[in-house]
Amino acid sequence: MDATAKKTTQKLVKLADAVIGQTNAGKNPALAVPTRTLANVRFNEKKRIIELGGDTQKRLFFNVGQAKKFMQTFLVGAACKELIAEGKTTSIRDLYYLTKHTLGETKQNTFEEQEESDPIIEDLEVTVDALREELHLFASNKGNLVGEITLVDSGDTIDARRMGSGGWGVPSIVEADVIQFKRHEAKFVLLVEKDAVFRRLNEDRFWKKHHCILIHGGGQPPRGVRRLVNRLHEELGLPVYVLVDNDPWGFYIYSVVKQGSINLAYESMRMAVPKARFVGLSSFDKAKFELPDNVTIKMTDDDERRGKQMLAYPWFQKKQWQKELTQMLKSGIKLEIEALSSMGISFITEEYLPRKLRDGDWLE
Amino acid sequence: MDATAKKTTQKLVKLADAVIGQTNAGKNPALAVPTRTLANVRFNEKKRIIELGGDTQKRLFFNVGQAKKFMQTFLVGAACKELIAEGKTTSIRDLYYLTKHTLGETKQNTFEEQEESDPIIEDLEVTVDALREELHLFASNKGNLVGEITLVDSGDTIDARRMGSGGWGVPSIVEADVIQFKRHEAKFVLLVEKDAVFRRLNEDRFWKKHHCILIHGGGQPPRGVRRLVNRLHEELGLPVYVLVDNDPWGFYIYSVVKQGSINLAYESMRMAVPKARFVGLSSFDKAKFELPDNVTIKMTDDDERRGKQMLAYPWFQKKQWQKELTQMLKSGIKLEIEALSSMGISFITEEYLPRKLRDGDWLE
Repeated sequence: MDATAKKTTQKLVKLADAVIGQTNAGKNPALAVPTRTLANVRFNEKKRIIELGGDTQKRLFFNVGQAKKFMQTFLVGAACKELIAEGKTTSIRDLYYLTKHTLGETKQNTFEEQEESDPIIEDLEVTVDALREELHLFASNKGNLVGEITLVDSGDTIDARRMGSGGWGVPSIVEADVIQFKRHEAKFVLLVEKDAVFRRLNEDRFWKKHHCILIHGGGQPPRGVRRLVNRLHEELGLPVYVLVDNDPWGFYIYSVVKQGSINLAYESMRMAVPKARFVGLSSFDKAKFELPDNVTIKMTDDDERRGKQMLAYPWFQKKQWQKELTQMLKSGIKLEIEALSSMGISFITEEYLPRKLRDGDWLE
Repeated sequence: MDATAKKTTQKLVKLADAVIGQTNAGKNPALAVPTRTLANVRFNEKKRIIELGGDTQKRLFFNVGQAKKFMQTFLVGAACKELIAEGKTTSIRDLYYLTKHTLGETKQNTFEEQEESDPIIEDLEVTVDALREELHLFASNKGNLVGEITLVDSGDTIDARRMGSGGWGVPSIVEADVIQFKRHEAKFVLLVEKDAVFRRLNEDRFWKKHHCILIHGGGQPPRGVRRLVNRLHEELGLPVYVLVDNDPWGFYIYSVVKQGSINLAYESMRMAVPKARFVGLSSFDKAKFELPDNVTIKMTDDDERRGKQMLAYPWFQKKQWQKELTQMLKSGIKLEIEALSSMGISFITEEYLPRKLRDGDWLE
């Protein structure tokens, strides 16, 4: 068993031991679960991440309203401990089936729906302070990687310089016991929103010319991609650039990569990259790169509503971002990365990105 | 330029030459576009694929209702010819931007929306008889592969036996000029619906013990995955097994892999695998594997409607399939692959699949 597995197991055992201790002492067994509500989420101005505050709530065993959740928490904890001991990982959907059973002669199920087990997993994550990946659970995987790095995935050496057009599939669990970094010549990480843009840049061998690691997450990057980018940034000291559409959804993707999300605030510390740089598309790029009028798209009402919300977010208060968002709302138009193709199929590879990087033309 | 590229270019040039010939002869230039309507789609009982019939419609240049489409067809054709000449590929979204421009001093755009250019691409595919991938266009990519095969992707050698937990990302274009097959020990291809199941089987090294190639398509497999499976089957003679949920959606996924779809009937010949075998979940597996009652899910009204439709499809007329669908509808329940986890996390790897394969317990 590796170091991470041992540590996580110890955390789970400690949690159980505490409850046994309370029981033996004749007390009502209780857990202190950090509160995952909006009121307990804050933007840490110094670290520049969205994080969970210190509020916790008690979960009691002898309490009609809490007994079931109390037991569910330990049921999930026991299953995770077993997974770790067996060296296996599983999906959160699978865990639901693994732990679902009918109690004795009753008609009472441990869980009725996955909607019941998912929050219990999140409770357990915050209570023992372990990412779900450390509990050997994963969400779905998406995304590919190519570029100037060699890494080891489950014992297999992956040379990302020789991964063809498809690239290496980024797995859902990328913790240090699964993925290790070896030799690299990369100077930065380029995370793109869309797989089509990844394909264009890979076909043009952008990563070779500019010495970088190219990753896409197929839209909103999944946890595996976010965590891997975080590790490349923290452990190898690589700057991270994010290339998304010029619309509120693209800005949101960037924002989650950068400071985390409200829903998963407790994970920001190990997922977010507060220094991630936005290389567009910017609301000023249509003019800067002289793109034709006919590639713009009118913002929908929903876009406008989202854009206005973003103006008020504490993490978008920098002058640059206020200008950026105001310009988008004023113009009433949005732009997809693909709009750059109207200037030529490899315009993005040969003009747009090199110019942005050379001129330091990014937002932070 | 490789053989495929040359052939596709010749097809495009021939199309243009014909129109030039008509023009020089003083005739109204016309194209014969195979009709992609339901009326021109049939199930070929002998080949057991859904294919396009022989109906075509004329697209005339001097015709108010057809002139625009006529010109759009050549605009797209010219762009594809250029892509092929440059050795580049692009997304259908990108092609829309590439070919969109405003005509002269008018306010008339070549295309207003991608919804306009996509059908033109399909028209061109059927008219010159080339897959869109041969025209250097791609849809989105999804899906991963591991297993007992070495292949070459764009000049890079990919040993799928050493691809870690993530696997090789199956690209959207897998034609012979991009992907070549090298050494393999595989006895079959196992295509699974879900990435979580892929991860489970990969972690358990199912492909090593059973000598196979393991692929998932992240739900409904994208074109790249379908085409690759077709090539593995046709060129290497490997049987194909499909593992999906026990619900109408899972059956539909299998059905598309097997005989193609109505919408894309003209591609069945190069995408479908009529001999693909269904290894479940079958409607009889709950009893066969003694799964608990509490892992079943009640069918929705929509499920029932789809199930009844399927009973009438010509390609589900075999007795086996009628029994299978009738049983599902009769029981009113469906089962996810993950339901097997209620019997143990590796039940699928160690019991379910080996037993299905050993006993020849599949549907065709």
